Amino acid sequence: MLEGIKKDFPVLNQIVNDEPLVYLDNAATTQKPLKVLAAIKDYYENDNANVHRGVHTLAERATEKYEAAREKVRQFINAKSTKEVLFTRGTTTSINWVAQFAGQILKTGDEIVISIMEHHSNIVPWQEVAKKTGAILKFVYLKDGQLDMDDLRKKITNQTKFVSIAHVSNVLGTINPVEEITKIAHEHGAYMAVDGAQSTPHMAIDLQKMDVDFFAFSGHKMMGPTGIGVLYGKEELLNQFEPVEFGGEMIDFVYESHSTWTELPWKFEAGTPNIAGAIALGAAIDYIQELGIDQIHQHEIELIDYLMPKLQEIEGLKIYGPKDNVKRGGLIAFNIEGLHPHDVATALDMEGVAVRAGHHCAQPLLNYLETPATARASFYLYNTKADCDKLVEALKKTKEFFNLD
Amino acid sequence: MLEGIKKDFPVLNQIVNDEPLVYLDNAATTQKPLKVLAAIKDYYENDNANVHRGVHTLAERATEKYEAAREKVRQFINAKSTKEVLFTRGTTTSINWVAQFAGQILKTGDEIVISIMEHHSNIVPWQEVAKKTGAILKFVYLKDGQLDMDDLRKKITNQTKFVSIAHVSNVLGTINPVEEITKIAHEHGAYMAVDGAQSTPHMAIDLQKMDVDFFAFSGHKMMGPTGIGVLYGKEELLNQFEPVEFGGEMIDFVYESHSTWTELPWKFEAGTPNIAGAIALGAAIDYIQELGIDQIHQHEIELIDYLMPKLQEIEGLKIYGPKDNVKRGGLIAFNIEGLHPHDVATALDMEGVAVRAGHHCAQPLLNYLETPATARASFYLYNTKADCDKLVEALKKTKEFFNLD
Repeated sequence: MLEGIKKDFPVLNQIVNDEPLVYLDNAATTQKPLKVLAAIKDYYENDNANVHRGVHTLAERATEKYEAAREKVRQFINAKSTKEVLFTRGTTTSINWVAQFAGQILKTGDEIVISIMEHHSNIVPWQEVAKKTGAILKFVYLKDGQLDMDDLRKKITNQTKFVSIAHVSNVLGTINPVEEITKIAHEHGAYMAVDGAQSTPHMAIDLQKMDVDFFAFSGHKMMGPTGIGVLYGKEELLNQFEPVEFGGEMIDFVYESHSTWTELPWKFEAGTPNIAGAIALGAAIDYIQELGIDQIHQHEIELIDYLMPKLQEIEGLKIYGPKDNVKRGGLIAFNIEGLHPHDVATALDMEGVAVRAGHHCAQPLLNYLETPATARASFYLYNTKADCDKLVEALKKTKEFFNLD
Repeated sequence: MLEGIKKDFPVLNQIVNDEPLVYLDNAATTQKPLKVLAAIKDYYENDNANVHRGVHTLAERATEKYEAAREKVRQFINAKSTKEVLFTRGTTTSINWVAQFAGQILKTGDEIVISIMEHHSNIVPWQEVAKKTGAILKFVYLKDGQLDMDDLRKKITNQTKFVSIAHVSNVLGTINPVEEITKIAHEHGAYMAVDGAQSTPHMAIDLQKMDVDFFAFSGHKMMGPTGIGVLYGKEELLNQFEPVEFGGEMIDFVYESHSTWTELPWKFEAGTPNIAGAIALGAAIDYIQELGIDQIHQHEIELIDYLMPKLQEIEGLKIYGPKDNVKRGGLIAFNIEGLHPHDVATALDMEGVAVRAGHHCAQPLLNYLETPATARASFYLYNTKADCDKLVEALKKTKEFFNLD
């Protein structure tokens, strides 16, 4: 189904260190199809103007395209209304906003529950808001590379006001049962936030079904451009919380002494938004929809099914995260005994294979796993079984090079 | 000197309502030259990867290009060091950050001084921080369309902790003497912030000479893409203030209980930045540098010198702001007696002329000027005397259409 789509991605058609590029760093950022690049060019060459404030033709066209992109996002994540879809700079900004909302209501002794597998962007904002409000930040730990649900049930209490969990771990690949966790959070009167950065690009998201209160993701991890992301929030909650950024566009009236806010979603979008970014994210969603998000998910499962046993055959290679592929997304973090993951990544790069090495912005998790760093191969729709073969071959060469065989 | 450069801007070569487009809404956003569009395409088609965290070839190339863009910005505004150049989403975010810094030190009774000609983005963040800290927000008023410097000297006292003033007014076009104001602010021990959104694209900026503490501007108003902007801050101040957004990239170590920050400028740049946006802003700066920022400024002065008497000849047309062109930038806000500015803008659009109408995100100023709205024509390097003629002709037709002659 997804055969031959590499041609839609010009960047993939290049030689790196005398080898054809095999790009396996998709959990960090993804490549952009021609359709997305065309949307950017088309916007700037035909319609570019500032939005909402203009009556001239270009301003009307730009506004229509920007708001049409919001509707595309709404459909893609099945939000009830475009009022619930806020454009942000990316997942990090989105989660920071949720933590700022929390700061508007948290009191000393209130509790926030996150997990040990969170990305720094879903840890540090909560540490800061806990520090400012006197709230207590609690971590849920793991069992067999997955969230320990018994621990989670113990940690979420009637003191809990916010729970914030990654949908898919960017290190373990674990898919967390966010629907179940949301139910537990709501039973205790807590708000549920989900970091969807690693799930939204790869699997169908139905926010009405999931019933989460807040959901954050980035455009650049789903073939959209850098500098654009989304914060979803339930309409009644977004009405209740104060905006985080202040300026033009988000106001109703500005007096010398005070100001009043405009309606959703614009109440949260101060200043000129990333107009071209939003429109190009809309084009990325169109591209995904044409291929089918379920097909993309299935493709990644097939790649992992194909790759996992081959990796397991490599002596001294340790894989992190769940062994059960149904519960993991399309990424594999690993280490080779005796080699620093940076050396592994550098050696793979010499073979044209791009993987990441480091702490993956998840130091508490790596500390918990008792490793300072791992290598990580992460996949997307344009990767193929041949890419998997190339990774395995390059890993074997790397071991030979370092005399580990 | 700037003849013939319209061909660098594909968007300008179009017909709007059966007339060739004359784009005079540059204070809202500017058009992008081919060079900037090529930079975006080139980045995504050759180098796209996440920055700073990767050891593979694409990640190294992306990081080099992103940091090279920061150096281009540094040179362009003459900051001492790239540590002082923070990439943000735009001017609004930049000023919000400064107001957040203020919130870290302001105490009840401390004073903030801004002017009545500020854009909402340089008013509302200060109202909010005043509300939170108990500080007092004071406005400096006008004299002959310019800042009343006597009033400013009265308003800035030893209680003043922050002064924040637009370099160029987005309504009046007034160029404010920020160097002089900075001296006054510093004499009273206050920090000086400048909203450079309307100046940076149009005139040479020398931040070491100006000696301001913070300086904000947007990429999209200087031929760069949407979604990227800059906050300049003096290194010692940026070291002293806490970051506003938290997440990956900006940390040194993350423990379960707390985190420590990395060094400047990355301490403030949480999460994946707008990489392509920064690189394309760098390309916009290259384009400006090749033409010469002083030539661009001179070109705009010539256009205003050419246009102003022609507008003044139109009966019933009232111009806002200083009459002295040396003290104004390349924009003119105006009203025609008996016509709502929205009707003026709509009528001009029928002639292919794009101007803005409304409160220009400056309601307190318009209230002070006792008008609910104005039309505004704003110019940039690609505008010509023929564009000015077309505006004047279309205004005359508009008056005829509404039977005002």
